[in-house]
Amino acid sequence: MEEVVEAAPSPMPTLDPHVEAELRRGVLTLVTLTLLDQPRYGYDLVRLLSQAGFEVEEGTLYPILRRLEQQGTLTSTWDTAGARPRKYYRISEEGLRLRDDLATAWRRVRDATDAALEGGTP
Amino acid sequence: MEEVVEAAPSPMPTLDPHVEAELRRGVLTLVTLTLLDQPRYGYDLVRLLSQAGFEVEEGTLYPILRRLEQQGTLTSTWDTAGARPRKYYRISEEGLRLRDDLATAWRRVRDATDAALEGGTP
Repeated sequence: MEEVVEAAPSPMPTLDPHVEAELRRGVLTLVTLTLLDQPRYGYDLVRLLSQAGFEVEEGTLYPILRRLEQQGTLTSTWDTAGARPRKYYRISEEGLRLRDDLATAWRRVRDATDAALEGGTP
Repeated sequence: MEEVVEAAPSPMPTLDPHVEAELRRGVLTLVTLTLLDQPRYGYDLVRLLSQAGFEVEEGTLYPILRRLEQQGTLTSTWDTAGARPRKYYRISEEGLRLRDDLATAWRRVRDATDAALEGGTP
């Protein structure tokens, strides 16, 4: 490199508070599917995800559940016995295959990321 | 649960081919920052990311580089010595802090995901 022209540095450095949320979102579908071997309703999932370290709003989870149901990877049933009807979700056969595929993809991305971080300065 | 009403199953199960891309996108900023301890130009980064297992289009990488530069976590310099001017990117002091934060967030999400996968059927 010769004749290097310095670009003006940006005046306002900020650390993006959403990056960890972005990281979590990528695995949320997989973690949600791991919780659905038994029927669970929405708020139950929110609570279990939170316990597992995935703090998530119902407004974030429900579109994921809807998408999975449209894909046929979840089935849902209404329980109308209680004071309020509740929609229960459960993983389907198709969902079990998706979960396996996602888990494989996860391990690949995890290992590649860990290797890149260990690599550090070349 | 009593009086369960079955919801109609979706007729078209599909496995989303974009989920692994979604997983990768979440860590792309972090992996990119690990490559910028020395000045590198865009296409060089695309090549190194691909070698590291992060196949990425220039059209995906450049907006990330722009955002990081606007945040002040990268600096850039133009090398005008060659046949074509090339923009080189390098991590800034602020970027080193972001990289540390992202690496911490990554380990947290990674461990939570691995634990959820191991947990399996409760």
